Amino acid sequence: MKAEIIAVGSELLLGQITNTNARFISSRLAEIGVDVYYQTVAGDNPARLEEAIRIAEERADLLVFSGGLGPTKDDLTKETIARHIGIALEMDEDALHSIEDYFERTGREMTANNRKQALVLKGSTILANHHGMAPGMALAANDHIYILLPGPPHEMEPMFEKLAIPYVHRALGRKEAIVSTVVKFYGIGEAELAFKVQDLLDSQSNPTIAPLASRDGVTLRLTAKADTPELARTLILPVIGDLQEQVGEFIYGFDDDTLSSKAAELLQEKGLSISAAESLTAGLFTSLLAEHAGISVALKGGMTVYTEEEKIRQLGLDPAMLKRHGVVSSECAGALAASVRKRFLTDIGIGLTGAAGPDPHDGQPAGTVWIGISFAGSTETYQLKLSGSRNSNRMRAANFTLYYLIRKLRTA
Amino acid sequence: MKAEIIAVGSELLLGQITNTNARFISSRLAEIGVDVYYQTVAGDNPARLEEAIRIAEERADLLVFSGGLGPTKDDLTKETIARHIGIALEMDEDALHSIEDYFERTGREMTANNRKQALVLKGSTILANHHGMAPGMALAANDHIYILLPGPPHEMEPMFEKLAIPYVHRALGRKEAIVSTVVKFYGIGEAELAFKVQDLLDSQSNPTIAPLASRDGVTLRLTAKADTPELARTLILPVIGDLQEQVGEFIYGFDDDTLSSKAAELLQEKGLSISAAESLTAGLFTSLLAEHAGISVALKGGMTVYTEEEKIRQLGLDPAMLKRHGVVSSECAGALAASVRKRFLTDIGIGLTGAAGPDPHDGQPAGTVWIGISFAGSTETYQLKLSGSRNSNRMRAANFTLYYLIRKLRTA
Repeated sequence: MKAEIIAVGSELLLGQITNTNARFISSRLAEIGVDVYYQTVAGDNPARLEEAIRIAEERADLLVFSGGLGPTKDDLTKETIARHIGIALEMDEDALHSIEDYFERTGREMTANNRKQALVLKGSTILANHHGMAPGMALAANDHIYILLPGPPHEMEPMFEKLAIPYVHRALGRKEAIVSTVVKFYGIGEAELAFKVQDLLDSQSNPTIAPLASRDGVTLRLTAKADTPELARTLILPVIGDLQEQVGEFIYGFDDDTLSSKAAELLQEKGLSISAAESLTAGLFTSLLAEHAGISVALKGGMTVYTEEEKIRQLGLDPAMLKRHGVVSSECAGALAASVRKRFLTDIGIGLTGAAGPDPHDGQPAGTVWIGISFAGSTETYQLKLSGSRNSNRMRAANFTLYYLIRKLRTA
Repeated sequence: MKAEIIAVGSELLLGQITNTNARFISSRLAEIGVDVYYQTVAGDNPARLEEAIRIAEERADLLVFSGGLGPTKDDLTKETIARHIGIALEMDEDALHSIEDYFERTGREMTANNRKQALVLKGSTILANHHGMAPGMALAANDHIYILLPGPPHEMEPMFEKLAIPYVHRALGRKEAIVSTVVKFYGIGEAELAFKVQDLLDSQSNPTIAPLASRDGVTLRLTAKADTPELARTLILPVIGDLQEQVGEFIYGFDDDTLSSKAAELLQEKGLSISAAESLTAGLFTSLLAEHAGISVALKGGMTVYTEEEKIRQLGLDPAMLKRHGVVSSECAGALAASVRKRFLTDIGIGLTGAAGPDPHDGQPAGTVWIGISFAGSTETYQLKLSGSRNSNRMRAANFTLYYLIRKLRTA
């Protein structure tokens, strides 16, 4: 099966946004063995979009569209496809109810053009949108498969993964099971990881191992094929064992785990409470933990003490100590961690201080970060020397704190 | 002039990398008034690449290629173009010397395939590569302009900016200036905004008005063409005036402004200090403000009080009041704002409480948020009813707080 991805939207042609959808869809299709020969971007212009569809039909069996399912007059993907293949649009009652519900729940006013989002290609399989209003569609017609997806990545990605991929599988009449597991690493670069596990990368063909750098560190995706999902899983397990042995200290989780979800999970599992005193991250660490429902049993709270004055006034840090060592120091991070822990009566206290950048802070170069973890009667500190932008440094400071916390919690 | 961008590389079709080059090239062409009608991605396959070239020649005057100029056998962009338009490749002595110099300087061994990088299309204008080895090319032939650029963004971007854009300008023999301004909205949906300014959208042709939904709300891009940039700007100004009149309460900024950058800017401009007490957002609000260098003159700090107990213990909220109204209430948000303001001795205090979800909290449905702003002796509260995921609700709660803060600061 040959596929072509057609992203629709003038904002792409104007260079206002990057076509990340094509990358996501391509990588997932590659994993199930569907070849993408072309990616195309067309604007919000029906004639030019139809021309792209006509060309794609000549060179691909599967056409995957993203974008242009919104409520405005510019959104015309399904209208253009409907006209091109001669199939009517009809109101999907489920989708309409879900849109009406949304407006009722949020107390916002529903305008006539929102109804348009519930129009679907007649005879298509509806791909429910759990993160937005516009439903997706999959349709087999004229010896082609047409899959229509919404443009916003947070709506498109789960829909494609959970609904469109199984649809393509069924359409291919495939019985072979494909199982894939993502192993997640932190504290190690992509090149270093590849170097350390080169033998494994070279020798493996089932499962295949594909490295990928992401915001949350580096990941390896292991993909195995077998007659059943269970058999495929048994092919993956020994490779995970090898990875644990060779680079286990850098593995923080699998699949949907993030650094913060893993830390939140371990805190709840071990029944430990936590609080944090943050300077350069200014609440980012506690905010990442609070992404996870149920965290209130562990996360009691925290303080942002952005200025030296507030470090002294709010958390009782010793002015003489700060004068001697500076606020960007192991001593300050440790004192923040110990003080906030006492203050919130928690098992664990976190202290974060540093020079986020772009300028040096208190005599320390931008990117210098000290992390303190106070737990079980002792306080340990860790230093980072980062070289990114201000906000990449702040995010990596919070992520490294989660990573050190996870390593500590594992053995707690 | 109509343009098409053709990115070449199988790694794009496999979803291993994102096509950021297409965005960069598109945005720069848009600024000089060249319309990009399509973006295409083809793999390292000569037949399929040539097919893409043939199609692009039918629908565009300017073909911009990125990628496939490297030393390996897979790199075949210039070979394919040369064969397709019937022009020979010849060794460019300057490019060859520069490659030889590079290897001498770095002490690495030059292999035969590196010589291949110095082959250029006969008669083309060479675009020197100051950040890598492969030279770019620009060629006018067969009523088309072909521009060939290297794939790595750090080589491609300065080459395109400094050498290719002037080449296109000269080719166009053009003096017309294009100016574009982005107007940024919050607190209003894309459909509702389009509905409210439908007349303007329909009647405008210079400047054109293009709506776009983004993470930070909705934006309108106004693009005007005129003989000079100054004249183009005078065409945009009255339209901004019309927007201010019709939907001004939802406008928070222009161009690179974000909600947090605008709030940070206004706080510094007005010389006002701020602190925040956060429950559902757990530090996200202060963390967003801290994204901006220099904010420590305004942001003193904050507290995350995640549990009811800590709201009472850390900020002295009245247990009887919380019992009567609940923690998800106007009263709680107001008390948090007033208390943290006193505690940090700031001009402004922010209180944020709510049910992030997925479950109801303290009897209130998920998505119910109360925001308190304590300023100049009085405390105002605002209610939100959101319907997103837990973290979209938390992010929107923080963004709405920034939006209300901006409105308050404007008149302060």
